[in-house]
Amino acid sequence: MRVIFNEEMKAVADDLDHMAQSVRKAIRGAGEALLESNVEAAQAVIDGDAELDALQESVVDQCVKLLAKQNPVATDLRVVVSTMRLAITFERMGDLAKHVAEASRRAYPASPLPEEAKESFTKMQEFLDETSDNLVAMLADRDAKTAERIILEDDKLDALHQQTFDLALNEDVEMTRQQIIDLVLLGRFLERLGDHAVSAARQVVFIVSGFDPSKTPGPDKEGMTE
Amino acid sequence: MRVIFNEEMKAVADDLDHMAQSVRKAIRGAGEALLESNVEAAQAVIDGDAELDALQESVVDQCVKLLAKQNPVATDLRVVVSTMRLAITFERMGDLAKHVAEASRRAYPASPLPEEAKESFTKMQEFLDETSDNLVAMLADRDAKTAERIILEDDKLDALHQQTFDLALNEDVEMTRQQIIDLVLLGRFLERLGDHAVSAARQVVFIVSGFDPSKTPGPDKEGMTE
Repeated sequence: MRVIFNEEMKAVADDLDHMAQSVRKAIRGAGEALLESNVEAAQAVIDGDAELDALQESVVDQCVKLLAKQNPVATDLRVVVSTMRLAITFERMGDLAKHVAEASRRAYPASPLPEEAKESFTKMQEFLDETSDNLVAMLADRDAKTAERIILEDDKLDALHQQTFDLALNEDVEMTRQQIIDLVLLGRFLERLGDHAVSAARQVVFIVSGFDPSKTPGPDKEGMTE
Repeated sequence: MRVIFNEEMKAVADDLDHMAQSVRKAIRGAGEALLESNVEAAQAVIDGDAELDALQESVVDQCVKLLAKQNPVATDLRVVVSTMRLAITFERMGDLAKHVAEASRRAYPASPLPEEAKESFTKMQEFLDETSDNLVAMLADRDAKTAERIILEDDKLDALHQQTFDLALNEDVEMTRQQIIDLVLLGRFLERLGDHAVSAARQVVFIVSGFDPSKTPGPDKEGMTE
């Protein structure tokens, strides 16, 4: 039984790693679409989202089957439940990257962002690129230390997100209504990508240690989670 | 074993019903905060969110314990997995209602919305009030018909949401930057509440029928899901 569980769990874990890599690719592509007006990159992110949706369904299905057939307990059970939750989180991250790509495609060949917003968004994007590298790494290595770093560093993204609000509020910076709307929504999409990364990191800490960091007071602020 | 499963599952189901009722209360309270500048209602929604967070954790914990101890299969397993997913969805709906309440409290005694937006938001709120009644009912009765109605009617909310964008884009309607930002974000929060209601309804259809409506093409559009 144990051998079968490990073999089947390995197959699911491979799919989950694959999802993390696809999310990283989607985040990078969304950044190229947004910051370099790369419409091919935008299209690739949009087209690639269906694969993430399918992988999520497949991972959840496999986990449900594992639960039925293998009756895992203790750490094994925790791994299966967290795997389902991670798949759902990654699927949402793909949706958010797609929203960014869609806004960029709509504005093409212009940028949806006013020039003044580029710096903050570039920094947010750099942060998310690094975070998505960390997501892939923490999952491949089941590495709670990398996961904890993702959780701890989320405040940086929130500070950058606040800068985008400050800019949107600044009546001295001329913007069309469409630019204000895009600035607000794109800022939110990137911030939500960071929130989901934190949520994924928590699941990995939970898998590795059995300790759920969301249940303790910590660096984690009252975020605009949804 | 079967008796214990049913007893323990009944306790979890009661907690889930309780969550649905709390979500309904939060949605109504958020509406009173937003549309009637009722700051006590806003505060109650904000304060009440912690209970929803705690209930979510408790429901997921109970489900994990059930999986470990009872090894449910077939429909029972589907019920447990869907219950976890519903709890996670309800917790997010509570977060969204809280965001609406927070924006209303910040603007108090004024409204965060320009006068011109009131009609669309009132209709969105009416829609969500009705949807949250349906959520409670479909869960209490495990009623797939009510759940299907929630899924089918989501387009109405999307159309109202589009009206709020059209208004934000209309340069003839004078608005401060803060009003534009609030209009865009509040519209998104209400639209996301509708999306989560659809997602919850799908879980109930899945529990009742074993049929997953998210896997078939249907009235469900390419939404701005996250």
